[in-house]
Amino acid sequence: MRTFRLVIACPDGVGIVAKVSNFLATYNGWITEASHHSDNQNGWFFMRHEIRADSLPFDLDGFRQAFAPIAKEFSMVWRISDSAEMRRVVLMASRESHCLADLLHRWRSGEMDCEIPCVISNHEDLRSMVEWHGIPYHHVPVDPQNKQPAFDEVSRLVDDYSADTVVLARYMQILPPDLCQRYRHQVINIHHSFLPSFVGAKPYHQASLRGVKLIGATCHYVTEELDAGPIIEQDVVRVTHRDSIETMVRLGKDVEKMVLSRGLRFHLEDRVIVHDNKTVVFA
Amino acid sequence: MRTFRLVIACPDGVGIVAKVSNFLATYNGWITEASHHSDNQNGWFFMRHEIRADSLPFDLDGFRQAFAPIAKEFSMVWRISDSAEMRRVVLMASRESHCLADLLHRWRSGEMDCEIPCVISNHEDLRSMVEWHGIPYHHVPVDPQNKQPAFDEVSRLVDDYSADTVVLARYMQILPPDLCQRYRHQVINIHHSFLPSFVGAKPYHQASLRGVKLIGATCHYVTEELDAGPIIEQDVVRVTHRDSIETMVRLGKDVEKMVLSRGLRFHLEDRVIVHDNKTVVFA
Amino acid sequence: MRTFRLVIACPDGVGIVAKVSNFLATYNGWITEASHHSDNQNGWFFMRHEIRADSLPFDLDGFRQAFAPIAKEFSMVWRISDSAEMRRVVLMASRESHCLADLLHRWRSGEMDCEIPCVISNHEDLRSMVEWHGIPYHHVPVDPQNKQPAFDEVSRLVDDYSADTVVLARYMQILPPDLCQRYRHQVINIHHSFLPSFVGAKPYHQASLRGVKLIGATCHYVTEELDAGPIIEQDVVRVTHRDSIETMVRLGKDVEKMVLSRGLRFHLEDRVIVHDNKTVVFA
Amino acid sequence: MRTFRLVIACPDGVGIVAKVSNFLATYNGWITEASHHSDNQNGWFFMRHEIRADSLPFDLDGFRQAFAPIAKEFSMVWRISDSAEMRRVVLMASRESHCLADLLHRWRSGEMDCEIPCVISNHEDLRSMVEWHGIPYHHVPVDPQNKQPAFDEVSRLVDDYSADTVVLARYMQILPPDLCQRYRHQVINIHHSFLPSFVGAKPYHQASLRGVKLIGATCHYVTEELDAGPIIEQDVVRVTHRDSIETMVRLGKDVEKMVLSRGLRFHLEDRVIVHDNKTVVFA
Repeated sequence: MRTFRLVIACPDGVGIVAKVSNFLATYNGWITEASHHSDNQNGWFFMRHEIRADSLPFDLDGFRQAFAPIAKEFSMVWRISDSAEMRRVVLMASRESHCLADLLHRWRSGEMDCEIPCVISNHEDLRSMVEWHGIPYHHVPVDPQNKQPAFDEVSRLVDDYSADTVVLARYMQILPPDLCQRYRHQVINIHHSFLPSFVGAKPYHQASLRGVKLIGATCHYVTEELDAGPIIEQDVVRVTHRDSIETMVRLGKDVEKMVLSRGLRFHLEDRVIVHDNKTVVFA
Repeated sequence: MRTFRLVIACPDGVGIVAKVSNFLATYNGWITEASHHSDNQNGWFFMRHEIRADSLPFDLDGFRQAFAPIAKEFSMVWRISDSAEMRRVVLMASRESHCLADLLHRWRSGEMDCEIPCVISNHEDLRSMVEWHGIPYHHVPVDPQNKQPAFDEVSRLVDDYSADTVVLARYMQILPPDLCQRYRHQVINIHHSFLPSFVGAKPYHQASLRGVKLIGATCHYVTEELDAGPIIEQDVVRVTHRDSIETMVRLGKDVEKMVLSRGLRFHLEDRVIVHDNKTVVFA
Repeated sequence: MRTFRLVIACPDGVGIVAKVSNFLATYNGWITEASHHSDNQNGWFFMRHEIRADSLPFDLDGFRQAFAPIAKEFSMVWRISDSAEMRRVVLMASRESHCLADLLHRWRSGEMDCEIPCVISNHEDLRSMVEWHGIPYHHVPVDPQNKQPAFDEVSRLVDDYSADTVVLARYMQILPPDLCQRYRHQVINIHHSFLPSFVGAKPYHQASLRGVKLIGATCHYVTEELDAGPIIEQDVVRVTHRDSIETMVRLGKDVEKMVLSRGLRFHLEDRVIVHDNKTVVFA
Repeated sequence: MRTFRLVIACPDGVGIVAKVSNFLATYNGWITEASHHSDNQNGWFFMRHEIRADSLPFDLDGFRQAFAPIAKEFSMVWRISDSAEMRRVVLMASRESHCLADLLHRWRSGEMDCEIPCVISNHEDLRSMVEWHGIPYHHVPVDPQNKQPAFDEVSRLVDDYSADTVVLARYMQILPPDLCQRYRHQVINIHHSFLPSFVGAKPYHQASLRGVKLIGATCHYVTEELDAGPIIEQDVVRVTHRDSIETMVRLGKDVEKMVLSRGLRFHLEDRVIVHDNKTVVFA
């Protein structure tokens, strides 16, 4: 069923819900899902509606025009999207296949509602798997002494493919600040620890050294500060003294791919609102 | 903060949210929490609002009068409650103390918003613990040959104490059908299995015999059919071949008390709507 | 590191561990992992050792001869296996790809230590995915009016490929009793419910109808009685009133593939001992 | 059933298990539980046996004498304990009651096998609850300008009561280094975060600020470095954007008390071996 997704953040106050609901009711909008959140700490209000597209007399532009006065009245930061216009997601990977294979399978079996115009990797390893899915594979090697040309090429590809989302599916390279800024809240990373524990390299080694009893993974938007962006989703799995680093890596892979796919789904369905480096996730 | 809780179930349709939101906005109601659910399978709509009481010009009766036309228009099954009017919860227990001790501690430390006018038990064991909390303890023994007099006494006590909720905190006796009907959706039980597995007696023995790898507990409203009422909350814990029935009982206790306290909290905060022997829980 | 896996079940008694440990020490066996379990309910003892193959002066046959007197003395049911002799696992599937894709990816990335000589399916849908992995795909349609020829063909294929394990990766057909008996404790199924709840067809529909708050999956050995064989592994995931049957199916897929892959790993590493329709799993 | 618990750590090598098993078998020791662990990273071996006391011809001293040559041969760090000689556990608390109430209830209902000779607190709040359990309550206020006298008094009480374990059940004071050293691996703390995240004060505030999707608790031995001692047990609970700091505190309480009680149980049953600031927990 095709829906419009109306996502709103604004300073809290009386009458917002009524105004928005009224607007929708006036045009006979059939709401299939509605979520609200009042954040008492910062005084902001967040709202998401999913409305049957065929119940409304608008297309997206028509909706935008009609809704603009309300948005202005309440100083809303808002967006409306159409479930029929699929997001275009560029996947980036390195050598590890588990996250990429998981996303590709979900996409192929219709479980992940998006287009994947291409996959970019700094290695050749995963080409055959990607091409079997009928998706172009771009090998963009990263020269450790001079990384900028590679990131320029990545940036060019993302633009050429008109992508609106980039997923770092264990890409293992740190994006330069200009890319982070340019694609703000559009680049999703999976970090293989339960952040803020074990920022940076080799988190399973760090976890083993500290002797933690659970390891985890974190899906977050990428910002300039390493592993410090807004967290979308996290999960953990139990480990014991018996689990070597190798076993942790294996157990961690399952958490990583689950957490990444859940986080990406929230993003694709416009369920995530970023505010103050934190997320509201209307799951 | 004192709130009114407006809980609604009605056949789904366009304009319900707008009508209700408008009503609230007209009277300047400050919504602190709002939850909706459209059930596509049965065509019903469920809704819960929490509204700051001091933002409204009504008391409960005033609200009821003002809202009645809307409720009628949409054939709503609805209720409004005041967070300042605490529910009166009678706890019933047998010999096992873990659920009762847990609820009493939560109540005493202000974590569980209700009054506990009395505790009823078919044994004397837990009297001292209950009386230390300053709560009357009624010992109502159940004669296995003739249980009715005991249940008549229970019924009389529940009425005398003007209780609106009864919690079977491991009471271990099956309530007679007339009591189940009389206090429909007011009696909450904790069953020590992950229902519908292991209905009836000795679920941990059944679980051990079947060799399951997780055991659980279920908090549900009591109905005439044993362990078949609407489920409010469930959880599980991992077990292995090493866990004897005794260990399962110990591990299970922690799940039971957690699940019961979560389920009861949902009930006390008017977060549960029963429909078709299932629950909508606006957690 | 190549290891021998010594797996023992016998009536409990004093001196078993000493005898076995002594035997291993006499031959300078380097134990890398050891697990014991005394079942107080039935008086049986279970034991698993993993021993570095290069530390022992035997091959498997030599070990068997040398160990036979001890096995006899304690009436042991026992087996010894060589980690270098990989199990041969036939995968069977129907139309759903999630479990099959998951197992194939784990196998391809070296995470699942086995050979997969072929995949058998009653449909053509998954051929291309399987063949991309370089694995033969056999389409064996099942005639609903006369299923025996199909199962005869399955049986012939399993034998021809010298398989020692069959995995029903959402095969959706009930194996006939003779096959269950013939491959006793060799056929692993994934059932899409938390058994013993929701045996048989359409468990997610059953779960939705009952209104449970967790759904699950069960990996078990197949026996003549439907969904009643020894349970190897189980897990659950939380659902709410918002989750339609379709959403349950999607959430359940992730649990199914995780549970199946964990269960199969235990089996492949000789960590499972079946006794009295239950399992000891030395995870 | 009374058991002896033999706990061993030593450099790994061939023949250790055989020697120990032989020793036990020679004296007809009935092993009820046995656990081994070879740590490949540091080359150490860890082992725990539980043996029926009535099956052995020794008391603890007799055992120690007989076993000493083996311990010497393998350079073992080892201990033997008698399940009948209960540990003496001093509980320390501040104002929050949840952990203390939980431990007292478990102790009172026979679920936690230890003696609790006294409770020490820097406040009077919990006196009545403790004294109802028949346990002496010592109020030792801590002067923020001069804490040493209070800790001297704590130290004196621990010694006077011949305690062998101290549990900081949300004591909220940092023990001075000399106490940490003196009672090394005897003082158990519950920290209200998933360490190493959110060390120090107000971890739930830190968690809310960072926007994590899970909060947790950590049970660990206290060392001189704050919140950096060997971790015994951890767990987490899911939170969302809806959960205020107050809600996190409430949800966290349940995790804290569960994690602390599990960690303490492991300690009391001699299941924990500390090595290199990490723990082996033979759960």
